[in-house]
Amino acid sequence: MHKSLLALTALSLAIPATADAQRYDSRYGMEPGAHDEIAWDFLEGITTEIGPRLAGTPDEARGRAWAMEWLRAHGFVNVVDEPFPMPGWLRGEQRARIVGESAQPLVLTALGYSGATPAAGITAEVVHFATIEDLRAAPAGSLAGKIAYVGHSMRATQDGSHYGYFGSPRRQGPAIAASKGAAGMLIRSIGSDNDRLPHTGSTTFPAGTAAIPAAALSNPDADQLERLLRRAEAGGEPVRIELVLTPRQLGEVTSGNVTGEITGRDPSLPPVLLACHLDSWDEGTGAIDDASGCAIAAATALRVAEQGQPLRTIRVLFAGAEENGLWGSAAYSAAHRDEPMAVGIESDFGAGRIWRMETNFTEGNPDLWARLARAVSGYGVLPAANLVASGGADLNIMRDQRGAIVDLQQDGLRYFDLHHTANDTLDKVDPADLAQNVAVWTAVTAVLANEAGPIMGNAAAAD
Amino acid sequence: MHKSLLALTALSLAIPATADAQRYDSRYGMEPGAHDEIAWDFLEGITTEIGPRLAGTPDEARGRAWAMEWLRAHGFVNVVDEPFPMPGWLRGEQRARIVGESAQPLVLTALGYSGATPAAGITAEVVHFATIEDLRAAPAGSLAGKIAYVGHSMRATQDGSHYGYFGSPRRQGPAIAASKGAAGMLIRSIGSDNDRLPHTGSTTFPAGTAAIPAAALSNPDADQLERLLRRAEAGGEPVRIELVLTPRQLGEVTSGNVTGEITGRDPSLPPVLLACHLDSWDEGTGAIDDASGCAIAAATALRVAEQGQPLRTIRVLFAGAEENGLWGSAAYSAAHRDEPMAVGIESDFGAGRIWRMETNFTEGNPDLWARLARAVSGYGVLPAANLVASGGADLNIMRDQRGAIVDLQQDGLRYFDLHHTANDTLDKVDPADLAQNVAVWTAVTAVLANEAGPIMGNAAAAD
Repeated sequence: MHKSLLALTALSLAIPATADAQRYDSRYGMEPGAHDEIAWDFLEGITTEIGPRLAGTPDEARGRAWAMEWLRAHGFVNVVDEPFPMPGWLRGEQRARIVGESAQPLVLTALGYSGATPAAGITAEVVHFATIEDLRAAPAGSLAGKIAYVGHSMRATQDGSHYGYFGSPRRQGPAIAASKGAAGMLIRSIGSDNDRLPHTGSTTFPAGTAAIPAAALSNPDADQLERLLRRAEAGGEPVRIELVLTPRQLGEVTSGNVTGEITGRDPSLPPVLLACHLDSWDEGTGAIDDASGCAIAAATALRVAEQGQPLRTIRVLFAGAEENGLWGSAAYSAAHRDEPMAVGIESDFGAGRIWRMETNFTEGNPDLWARLARAVSGYGVLPAANLVASGGADLNIMRDQRGAIVDLQQDGLRYFDLHHTANDTLDKVDPADLAQNVAVWTAVTAVLANEAGPIMGNAAAAD
Repeated sequence: MHKSLLALTALSLAIPATADAQRYDSRYGMEPGAHDEIAWDFLEGITTEIGPRLAGTPDEARGRAWAMEWLRAHGFVNVVDEPFPMPGWLRGEQRARIVGESAQPLVLTALGYSGATPAAGITAEVVHFATIEDLRAAPAGSLAGKIAYVGHSMRATQDGSHYGYFGSPRRQGPAIAASKGAAGMLIRSIGSDNDRLPHTGSTTFPAGTAAIPAAALSNPDADQLERLLRRAEAGGEPVRIELVLTPRQLGEVTSGNVTGEITGRDPSLPPVLLACHLDSWDEGTGAIDDASGCAIAAATALRVAEQGQPLRTIRVLFAGAEENGLWGSAAYSAAHRDEPMAVGIESDFGAGRIWRMETNFTEGNPDLWARLARAVSGYGVLPAANLVASGGADLNIMRDQRGAIVDLQQDGLRYFDLHHTANDTLDKVDPADLAQNVAVWTAVTAVLANEAGPIMGNAAAAD
């Protein structure tokens, strides 16, 4: 089988045999201009031939069919699509204008699961909250008939750690505003760029709360709105906005999780799980979020197989419907919780170079940790023994199994410039960065897939 | 009068008295973080309170009224709005999708004076031309019922010199395609970025040629289309696009040129003309194109006046309707051709720092040239004695009068990342860059406005 894989793929990526092999770019352990043709083929193909892959839509289903064909053509076996139900949502019209003396359009994007305005829109005064905390503190009923706006803004950070807290205006803001009577909610995009390309993403309303119209302004539009709000606060005309958002809640629709395997020499051993998600938001082509993750996972399985059939089976999981609420990851865990997995790794933070590794078994399995640390040390990756891996959105199953997780942290300093925008397209991925990801994943996965003993070691027993 | 100006404006900009005054940033002759509050007040005000200012629309008229009020409030006299007629054009719906196996939306923007499709759009096969030369070479009638696409792409250059030649697919492409029977025309954006924000701009159809629908794809969308066209050329499905463009030709509408003056000590001398344009494209707020130019011109007149009433009158010209075809510049020259101007300077290339100066009187008036060269030499500006200034779009009158022109060249390396896109907003202007422009303009204008003799010198006589 692996001979046929070699024939199928043009191999441009030289995997260094040892950490001290001769290298041109010692920072990353890669030759300058390194290119992984397998990963690029997947990434270029699905983003070009399928484009956007919104969860629960025919576009996502076309993406699954495309990915399954690709996996089979590259020698994966047991390629399946496991369907699951989810609540569907479809974008409609989305536009807004300042009305009055400074009449002008604003650029925005509806949030996933946003409610709709009437087709003709609503016109309402904007109430300004600098932060999500200020919105939470607003008196009950104080927003009746108003549009709440929260300007809380995130900074670019290498580890993306601002996204959690500063993403709360998007995730919880509309429900909080609705609870205080708001007719609609606008937020500043959860993004670190200043392009007029707003950042979408899901919001949630608790059961029993009617979804209000909710959208994100691009950062320059949020700046513009805030300049006008400051004039209003200084005695100028109140700011009123005409808002048209006509998304539709589709009720129950079907998404699916695609998996495929490279069979190990001992198929009775729990497999190594390489995860990503195949769906994307609808305004970009989901290149960095997350076709690149699936490209890395799939290419890694093939690159490990090129070195000889691994001991353990390597399974790739292309989760569905991550963006709208991690539906695929939850469905996969529900279906496979009783099937032990050896270890999980996920790629869902773009295609920036990997700069740090942590696991959740470092203390319990120091020998394996030492071998992993050596495997990545030549690629500019810090083995962070003091940190504990927790996995990402697509690894629910590993957390539910209290299983082993390796986190290979990508440099995400500019990830939130593009995240969930129309700008998430192929041209934003640096092929050399993508190749470094595959090289690091291959080094790590080769160790894990050939590990005979239990990977959690003592930590699992202590759990 | 100038005392009142001093009272009106907080003066944060220290104009160095001599080139060897102590400076922190010797590259630009400015203190780090220098800020010109007058220029910023104009720029921030008009882009925030008015927003987009499409030529011939009520938005542009509101912009003129705003600017006239600003000029009067800052001490300008003879503030007038000279109306002129122009053919109006208004953007409508604009969307496109690939149809067939790789169905997906494409992001585009209608070109100014584009024709319209039916409201339901057209669906047609795309014919690929790598360059404008290839389109010119297409046989007559060969594009019947097709959509022509030209992928000719510009590079970023400091002097913007790619814009002329590589802008031809936008300016002439649709007319060429129409002459060969095309049902529509798409171009790659004339821009140096890779954001999904397409670059609009005017196109022209000769009298008697019906305007066909014509639009620019963003660069990432052009890349995507070309990847699909390459698959078609290799035997895949032909690429078909559904195109909806519903702009309207409005017939004759009214724009206007706004002028205002700082009166000189000898009003009988021809004035110094500082030009820019006030209109903008409709998708951005026209911050770099060209509110910053008007901010620089207006602030310069006031900064020179702060040094004492100049000998000559300084007139600012905020031209109307530059974007749609230089209508304002032509109207101004037609109305004022017989009124001699001493010298013209224009700012219409963003707000990047000035790096080079040339004139069209360097040879004929070497003494004045030497004084101008000394005036700018401390600001990191190269006095280019070997080049001849020709002025920009808003200086028709100087060319028609064979008058004196000074070109203060801005660094435009990133100008075409933003030019004619929705991304042309206030946040893209660096206040320190804007301040350097005002400082250089002030140094130059102070020399010119206090020059008693004829500025063209011998060159004028030789003309």
